[in-house]
Amino acid sequence: MDEVAIVGVGVYPFGKHLDDTYGKMTSGACKKAIEDANMDGKEVQMAWYGTSAGVGAGYLALGAIGASGIPLTRVENACSGGSCAIRDAYFAIRAGACDIALAMGVEKMHGSTMGKVMGVDTMAEIEKGGPSGEEEDVKAEGKKGIKGMGGITMPGAFAAIANMHMSLYGTTREQLAMVAVKSHKNAAKNPYAQYQKEMTLDEVLNSKMIDDPLTIYQCSPFSDGAAAVILANEKIAKKYTDTPVYIAASAQASGVSTDPEYTSTIIGEAKFPPTLQCIKEATRQAKCEVKDINVFEVHDCFTPAEILHYEDLGLCKKGDGGKFIEDGISEIDGKYPVNPSGGLLSVGHPLGATGVRQAADIVWQLRGERGKLQVEGAEIGLTHTMGWPAMGVVEAMHIFRR
Amino acid sequence: MDEVAIVGVGVYPFGKHLDDTYGKMTSGACKKAIEDANMDGKEVQMAWYGTSAGVGAGYLALGAIGASGIPLTRVENACSGGSCAIRDAYFAIRAGACDIALAMGVEKMHGSTMGKVMGVDTMAEIEKGGPSGEEEDVKAEGKKGIKGMGGITMPGAFAAIANMHMSLYGTTREQLAMVAVKSHKNAAKNPYAQYQKEMTLDEVLNSKMIDDPLTIYQCSPFSDGAAAVILANEKIAKKYTDTPVYIAASAQASGVSTDPEYTSTIIGEAKFPPTLQCIKEATRQAKCEVKDINVFEVHDCFTPAEILHYEDLGLCKKGDGGKFIEDGISEIDGKYPVNPSGGLLSVGHPLGATGVRQAADIVWQLRGERGKLQVEGAEIGLTHTMGWPAMGVVEAMHIFRR
Repeated sequence: MDEVAIVGVGVYPFGKHLDDTYGKMTSGACKKAIEDANMDGKEVQMAWYGTSAGVGAGYLALGAIGASGIPLTRVENACSGGSCAIRDAYFAIRAGACDIALAMGVEKMHGSTMGKVMGVDTMAEIEKGGPSGEEEDVKAEGKKGIKGMGGITMPGAFAAIANMHMSLYGTTREQLAMVAVKSHKNAAKNPYAQYQKEMTLDEVLNSKMIDDPLTIYQCSPFSDGAAAVILANEKIAKKYTDTPVYIAASAQASGVSTDPEYTSTIIGEAKFPPTLQCIKEATRQAKCEVKDINVFEVHDCFTPAEILHYEDLGLCKKGDGGKFIEDGISEIDGKYPVNPSGGLLSVGHPLGATGVRQAADIVWQLRGERGKLQVEGAEIGLTHTMGWPAMGVVEAMHIFRR
Repeated sequence: MDEVAIVGVGVYPFGKHLDDTYGKMTSGACKKAIEDANMDGKEVQMAWYGTSAGVGAGYLALGAIGASGIPLTRVENACSGGSCAIRDAYFAIRAGACDIALAMGVEKMHGSTMGKVMGVDTMAEIEKGGPSGEEEDVKAEGKKGIKGMGGITMPGAFAAIANMHMSLYGTTREQLAMVAVKSHKNAAKNPYAQYQKEMTLDEVLNSKMIDDPLTIYQCSPFSDGAAAVILANEKIAKKYTDTPVYIAASAQASGVSTDPEYTSTIIGEAKFPPTLQCIKEATRQAKCEVKDINVFEVHDCFTPAEILHYEDLGLCKKGDGGKFIEDGISEIDGKYPVNPSGGLLSVGHPLGATGVRQAADIVWQLRGERGKLQVEGAEIGLTHTMGWPAMGVVEAMHIFRR
C-alpha cells in the first residue's frame, strides 16, 4: 500500500472576519496550499471539505483554483470535521482512487447562520461582541454557550470535567489557567492566530467567570477562518516539494452520549475514552510510541481539555496533568511541546477549519519552517480534534513524520 | 487491491412519517441491514452516514446496533450524500483501513428543521400538506420550491431544462409524463415506496401545473426514510452472505454553478456534464460498456431528469430520450430497465437516504430477490444520484455486479 504525503498547506488567518464569506476564506486557504505545493490547481483530482455550516464553500474554492468538476464531498463531524476530511482524502489515495487530493476546512462563526444551522438558538445571544474583535467580547458566555452532550452547554460540560479533575486529583485553578497562559505566550508569535498577545496568570484567573472554575480566557473563542492541505501519493510527492510530510497514522473513535456509562466516564472520571482508543490505534499504525512524538497540536477547546489530553495521550500518568503544565513540560522547549501554535484557545477555533489548521502547523514544524514557534528537530508530530455532534463525541487523530 | 462487496442492506420504508425521528429511521434501516448480513453489529468497524440535516442520527444508529465507539463521519452532499457515504466507506476498505464498514442515509423532510438547515425559508410554505400523506398534498409547489442553482427553484430549473429539451429535440409533454406513469406503475408493486398506486397518462398530464410543463406528479415528493448497506472486503464477504454484490466502480463529478459556461450547458443544452464524466469513469473502472448494464436506478427528481439521464448515460442518442420512454425501453421488461423500484418520483426522495436506497434496490435485483419488480437475469446494475448543494452540482455513480 502506497504512503501518502502532504505536499502543500495553506491557512487563511483565523480571526473575526465580518466581511469575509465562507467561499472567500476557503478559496484563500486553497490558493495558498496550491502555491505552497508548486502545483497547478487542475492537478487536484478529488477533494473533501470539513465544515459545520459552510455548505457550498468547497465548490467555490474548486472554482477559484481551477479544479471545478472534480469529485467534492462535504464532511461534517462538528469540531472534528476538518480532520475527517483529511482522513477521507487519505483513504482515497491509499485506495488508489487518485494520486492528489485536497482537504479543506472552514467556518464562519461571526455574523453567520452558524448558530441556526447547529440548531442552537442561544448562539445569537452569545455573539454580541460588536466589531472590536477583542477577546473579552467574542468568547463564549457561560450557560448560554453551545449546547452539546445531553443538553448541557460546552462550557458547562468542561467546567464539570474540571471540577471532577480537581476533586479526584487535586488539580488547582492556577494549573488550569496555566494552559491559557502558555497558549497566549505561543500565539503572540503566531501571525495566523486570532489573539496575538501574552497574558499573565493573574489576568487569566481574574477575567470574567464563565462557569466555575473556567474564566473567559480559558474558553476558545468564536472564530472565522479556513485551512487547506494537499495530499499526494508518495510516488509523486517529491515532484511538488523537497520536504514531503507523510501521514503515518489516521485514527478515529466515537461515543454515543445517550449511553449512560459512556457519559459517566467522561464527567465522572474526567477521561475521554475516544482519546485512549485513538492514541492506541495511531501509534500502532505509525509503529511508534507516544514518547517518540516530538510535537502535538491537540484540542484545547477549554483549559481542562488540554490537561485531560496530556493524560489520555499517555504523556503523563492519569491525574498528573496539572503538574505537567506547571512543570513546563508542554512548553515549546519542553519535553513534549503541546500546542506550540497557541492551540484553539488563542489561534481560534473555526470548527471545521481546526483539524486542517493543526495539520498545517505540524507540517510547518516537521519542515522546520515554524520560526519562533519551531520545536527544534521535530521529526514526528500529532494532531488531535474532538467534536461533539448532537448525540455523540467523535475524535480524530493523525500522526505525521518527516 | 481487494474488491469490496455489499453483504447486507436495509431500508426503512419511505413515506410521511411525522412521528418518526431521524434516529429511529436510521436505526431501523441499520438493524435490517445487520440482520440481512447475518452479522453482529459489533463486527462493524467504521461508518459513514449521508444526510442533509440529520446531525447525530448516525451516532444513535451505532448505539442501536451495538457498534458505539467506532469511527463515524457525516457526509453532506445534498441529494448525493448517501452515495458519497457509500463511496467513502468503499475507499476505507479498499485502503485496507478496515474490513467491514456501514454506510447509512437518512432524511426527514416532514415536520423537521430541514428547511431551516438548508437555508430555505420557503420550505415551510411548501410543506402544508397536512397529515393525509396524499401525493397532491405533499409534493413541491412551483416557484416556492427549493432554491438551487443561482437562486432559481428546483422545479423552475427542471422546467427550464424540459422546455429546452422540447425546443431542441421535439420532446412532447406526453413523453415527459410517461416517465411518471412508468414510475407509478413500478412503485405500485414496491412495499418500500411512498406512493403505491398506478396513474394514467391523463391523470399525470391533468394534475396541478407546477412550472410548465411540469405537473405535480412529475415532481419528486417530500419524504422521510432511511437506508443502510454493509460493505465488506471480498475476503470475508462470503462469511456473511452467499450472494455478495461487488462494487465494480465508484465515480463522482461536480460542477460550480457560478461558472456561466457550466450553467449554460445544463440549461442551454439540456445536458449534465457530470453525468458524462461519471459514466465514462464508472465504465472504465468496471471494465464494461453501458450496454452491458442490466438495471439502472437513476436520479429522477423530475420527469425531464430521467429523459436526460437516458441520453447522458448513453442508453440512446442525445435528443432521443422522449422516444426512449415512449418505446418502453426503460420498462422492467425493456432492454434497459430504468428505475424498476419506481425511482424518486414514487418511492420518494429523502435526500441523504436516496443513494443508499438505490444501492439496496440494485443489490436486491442482482440477488434476484426483487419479486414483482425483478429484472430477469440482472448481473450488472448502476446507481446514480445528482445533488445541487449551494453553488454546485454533484453526481455520484456506482456500478455493481453479482
